[in-house]
Amino acid sequence: MISFTCDYNEGAHPLILKRLLETNLQQEPGYGHDAFTASARTRIREACACPSAEVFLLTGGTQTNSTVIATMLRDYQGAVAAETGHIAVHEAGAVEYTGHKVLTLPSHDGKMRADDLRAYLAHYYADGSYDHMVFPGLVYISFPTEYGTLYSLSELQALRAVCDEYKLPLFVDGARLGYGLMSPACDVTLQDLAALCDVFTIGGTKVGALCGEAVVFPHGAPDHFFTMVKQHGALLAKGRLLGIQFDVLFTDGLYFKIAQGAIDLAMQLKDLFVSKGYELFMDSHTNQQFVLLTPEAMQRLEGKVAYEVWDTLPDGRAVTRFATSWATTPEQVDALAHIL
Amino acid sequence: MISFTCDYNEGAHPLILKRLLETNLQQEPGYGHDAFTASARTRIREACACPSAEVFLLTGGTQTNSTVIATMLRDYQGAVAAETGHIAVHEAGAVEYTGHKVLTLPSHDGKMRADDLRAYLAHYYADGSYDHMVFPGLVYISFPTEYGTLYSLSELQALRAVCDEYKLPLFVDGARLGYGLMSPACDVTLQDLAALCDVFTIGGTKVGALCGEAVVFPHGAPDHFFTMVKQHGALLAKGRLLGIQFDVLFTDGLYFKIAQGAIDLAMQLKDLFVSKGYELFMDSHTNQQFVLLTPEAMQRLEGKVAYEVWDTLPDGRAVTRFATSWATTPEQVDALAHIL
Amino acid sequence: MISFTCDYNEGAHPLILKRLLETNLQQEPGYGHDAFTASARTRIREACACPSAEVFLLTGGTQTNSTVIATMLRDYQGAVAAETGHIAVHEAGAVEYTGHKVLTLPSHDGKMRADDLRAYLAHYYADGSYDHMVFPGLVYISFPTEYGTLYSLSELQALRAVCDEYKLPLFVDGARLGYGLMSPACDVTLQDLAALCDVFTIGGTKVGALCGEAVVFPHGAPDHFFTMVKQHGALLAKGRLLGIQFDVLFTDGLYFKIAQGAIDLAMQLKDLFVSKGYELFMDSHTNQQFVLLTPEAMQRLEGKVAYEVWDTLPDGRAVTRFATSWATTPEQVDALAHIL
Amino acid sequence: MISFTCDYNEGAHPLILKRLLETNLQQEPGYGHDAFTASARTRIREACACPSAEVFLLTGGTQTNSTVIATMLRDYQGAVAAETGHIAVHEAGAVEYTGHKVLTLPSHDGKMRADDLRAYLAHYYADGSYDHMVFPGLVYISFPTEYGTLYSLSELQALRAVCDEYKLPLFVDGARLGYGLMSPACDVTLQDLAALCDVFTIGGTKVGALCGEAVVFPHGAPDHFFTMVKQHGALLAKGRLLGIQFDVLFTDGLYFKIAQGAIDLAMQLKDLFVSKGYELFMDSHTNQQFVLLTPEAMQRLEGKVAYEVWDTLPDGRAVTRFATSWATTPEQVDALAHIL
Repeated sequence: MISFTCDYNEGAHPLILKRLLETNLQQEPGYGHDAFTASARTRIREACACPSAEVFLLTGGTQTNSTVIATMLRDYQGAVAAETGHIAVHEAGAVEYTGHKVLTLPSHDGKMRADDLRAYLAHYYADGSYDHMVFPGLVYISFPTEYGTLYSLSELQALRAVCDEYKLPLFVDGARLGYGLMSPACDVTLQDLAALCDVFTIGGTKVGALCGEAVVFPHGAPDHFFTMVKQHGALLAKGRLLGIQFDVLFTDGLYFKIAQGAIDLAMQLKDLFVSKGYELFMDSHTNQQFVLLTPEAMQRLEGKVAYEVWDTLPDGRAVTRFATSWATTPEQVDALAHIL
Repeated sequence: MISFTCDYNEGAHPLILKRLLETNLQQEPGYGHDAFTASARTRIREACACPSAEVFLLTGGTQTNSTVIATMLRDYQGAVAAETGHIAVHEAGAVEYTGHKVLTLPSHDGKMRADDLRAYLAHYYADGSYDHMVFPGLVYISFPTEYGTLYSLSELQALRAVCDEYKLPLFVDGARLGYGLMSPACDVTLQDLAALCDVFTIGGTKVGALCGEAVVFPHGAPDHFFTMVKQHGALLAKGRLLGIQFDVLFTDGLYFKIAQGAIDLAMQLKDLFVSKGYELFMDSHTNQQFVLLTPEAMQRLEGKVAYEVWDTLPDGRAVTRFATSWATTPEQVDALAHIL
Repeated sequence: MISFTCDYNEGAHPLILKRLLETNLQQEPGYGHDAFTASARTRIREACACPSAEVFLLTGGTQTNSTVIATMLRDYQGAVAAETGHIAVHEAGAVEYTGHKVLTLPSHDGKMRADDLRAYLAHYYADGSYDHMVFPGLVYISFPTEYGTLYSLSELQALRAVCDEYKLPLFVDGARLGYGLMSPACDVTLQDLAALCDVFTIGGTKVGALCGEAVVFPHGAPDHFFTMVKQHGALLAKGRLLGIQFDVLFTDGLYFKIAQGAIDLAMQLKDLFVSKGYELFMDSHTNQQFVLLTPEAMQRLEGKVAYEVWDTLPDGRAVTRFATSWATTPEQVDALAHIL
Repeated sequence: MISFTCDYNEGAHPLILKRLLETNLQQEPGYGHDAFTASARTRIREACACPSAEVFLLTGGTQTNSTVIATMLRDYQGAVAAETGHIAVHEAGAVEYTGHKVLTLPSHDGKMRADDLRAYLAHYYADGSYDHMVFPGLVYISFPTEYGTLYSLSELQALRAVCDEYKLPLFVDGARLGYGLMSPACDVTLQDLAALCDVFTIGGTKVGALCGEAVVFPHGAPDHFFTMVKQHGALLAKGRLLGIQFDVLFTDGLYFKIAQGAIDLAMQLKDLFVSKGYELFMDSHTNQQFVLLTPEAMQRLEGKVAYEVWDTLPDGRAVTRFATSWATTPEQVDALAHIL
């Protein structure tokens, strides 16, 4: 059985494992004070063209989102997100658990529109009783979104402009950042993100690492962020595990190369489905492809190919997701072609 | 420079890395639903002689403590701990961050006494205004303690008896459990713990893993513990990373063997200090040795041997900690001997 | 200037003040252990025809909602509410501050539909990843709603049926309960509520008291609710203040009488607006009347009559709220008639 | 039966009730925007000789403490208090419920010593792993303390000096402030407090009000304190109830006069016990007197006089508390004299 269910079905990129082996007995201090983490930070700053950025390495996505959001907000503030945003739906209420509301705006294929954001903020501050409500405290978007869609550079700039107008920090959740940046449809660079965001993450878990999300604060982190990371249970004793992985991923552009490979195969996958007459649920340009499958098609794949079912349409077809990753091989796509 | 500063200076036991490599491309579901985690759970249940135990694998110690405590307690309850307990001092207020007070009792070389616990509980319930105070909701102890000391089986039984009397769950934080169980001074087994506790942890990070704490609930976990683990940001997407490590650690008794090796070297270390005329701060039987060093002695080690300084006595001597681990070698202890 | 801005513009019903004076020097224990509170509890139980109900007296509405919701839910659960629900909008995130998400459903003139609730719950549990989301833990509705609308008995029974199906407690926020029960459009009684709810509140602040909300748990309160009330800062030292007020309000049906008076005047107010050719924003049968006012009409009222502006329609008319209360007099309605 | 159990056994000072009656039908906006609250604020600022102070009126003591502390602290900070401090013991964990640890120092008859505070802070910042611990974020003391003792002006200045040294705000809980300021042993004025504190409270509940604590921020309140008060469930819809009470209490020095009366009677009470040969548990100069009673003495008072029992000494005598209040009469003290 071949699995396209998600982009975290396998372990880590071989170069990461190789480096873990090579460095295994090198004695290093804990909690991110090791030489590997220092090196990873430098490489990430360089890749972002942002030498003064503060960089922290955390373990998982929900952990990172709730830690960043809780530490960026004051008690009276919430995070503004699209109603399909990961923090609004699939994080078991981790943000609310820290005491903060997620304020939702309409989703347009997973994206938040600058106009919707501006209208919401204008309406909020025009309300005579706004100080009885939760203050918008930061804007959260995902890049790519949960639907595999991408913000264009001008869309990001438009959101940034609204944020500037209302003095709101902009947080980009890049759990699948590599797959976004390497998409043929993407006109945004890592440097653009560093220039436009107050904080963003570079997802490792889904792009070749065993675990790990890099949090980048281009203009500086909240005071005592280290202690709050610990308070959130997000501080790894052997920080080297994260340091080594990001150090390898940001050496010789590995992060981008392996994302590129996954994107190439995702585009092949899309072409394959289209050429075989399948309808796409939406036209995705990243590593997640959404395909409508009839019950017959699903039966054909049964026991041979795994994928995720998101929903069922009234006509009986399933909305399915096929994800490629750094570990997907051309052979796996070929095998799928034969089965279809 | 040789470092004895702590037991998380190196990577992972070679057998763990070997297994990570071997299984790297095996496709497995995420979030702990993988075959490795299933196998690790079975092995841990067997080692505990507790076939019905529920076992969860989390990433770090503070994370595990705050998640377990928050999910075991009702809002009106707090956790009772020795005032030196890790949760009371060195976790950046992670337990309080979840809304619960840590209620402290006197520490006797890091241990809580059953008599103190009973007296506290009796006094609490005798107080006419006890319902204006935080209810004791569980008892937290560390094994070994933060001072490297151990509860005897009868001490644990005595604590259990008080817990039974007051219907309080007993939680044993085993961040260094292996080093406790393998100590020559220990008369407690893993099976004893499973029989005496409502929940305990088996620390991986400090006993050969890159990361990971196994949480064992002999009598069942809180409802929807999985979801609350996610809510605490403690659910790893690639749960296989934890599954593989604990599967290896509990194959052929590796966990106990590597702990034994560290204990043997710690005993050599202790003998070494004593034979050279150094005074021990306390007589520890685990992998952490506490030695009093004069400024002259410290100067002799300067630049050659690293260790942790805990405090300074009025006579100018430092209370220092030398820790061995699964990675410590006889050669390192020999090198220290030559320098002393 | 006459104010119809809200139903808490004045002090308390004269009988309450009279009783405060009469009992002022009677020495009573604090924290709700006084004789007045005991009597109020008995009277409320009787009015509810629910002799085993547990009754607590708290001070304010947001306080009551967040305390009740936090103590009814487990950490992994949220409260389901209409998107216009008070807890979802106008409580400054008080529920989220306790760690719980408010899960919103569509509002139909302020009401939640049983069908929407059932569809949401069915969809939730059908989702393969539902344990990565917030569990619905209770259903919150307001009676009357924030829009002055009322659930019919059959609508409440339908919601109860869904709650039963999914084992969810039903919480009715009765901040303006009296005005709902006394509405000519209401076919629900206090006894019905006690039979249908797991917990509901009887609002005092807006129905003649200086402050105070009675929380009624027909089938028993959460364990140690008293202590959690204290933990939420909601326990009044001089509980007598609340006890006396509810004791008076539930003596000789005062609560219902004064609500009836306000409803009668609200119906006059509605008739007045309609007869003068004003359009209603919606047809409300409770003490809050929503009227569309042109800028000219607003100018006519300027400086003479106060009311609340909720929104502005594209045609320039304002959605306004005129509220009557126990303290509204026929003379005030007459005065308004002359100005219109 | 006469009760000396506490200072909140009765209702409110007659002048407060009178004013509630007089103003009852005056229409005023809610949430503290009423004219009475505005007037009370002005009077309190004048009494404090601090025209720029921000003043908020909340309902109860625990509520006020947890709201003030949570809004003054950042997530990584805790409140430093004497181990006998009200927030550390008798508030059901309300501070921890907001996510913050209470860091305790030794109590000296209920007081925190500046030297202890300085030593703690120096030790904290000297600890190499201090950023794994909870940062001290403010200093909380009670005036008078829970034991009825008072800080002298020089003691307060010494605490302030340490606070300045470490840039920590100083919070004085004045739940019984009047009884402290009017004590013959007190050399501190309200103006001194305003000059020395970053925030302090003026307790109304125990000094003549039905409920209410005034929170005074001499140098300004945290941003959006109003919204956070609402979030904590501490915002009263009919803020007039608090406004009227504090307006009356700070008209013609009523607050101080009624405190003086209680103090005079407390001193008589103390003299009475001493003259009858009873031993004091401690020499209190405020409205709470702590007396050691033998079982025989207690039997004599049985059914005639109520008081609070705090503890029992090994010799069988009870540590008891007799409190006077604004409502205590000379006749009540005389009656006690006859029974003794």
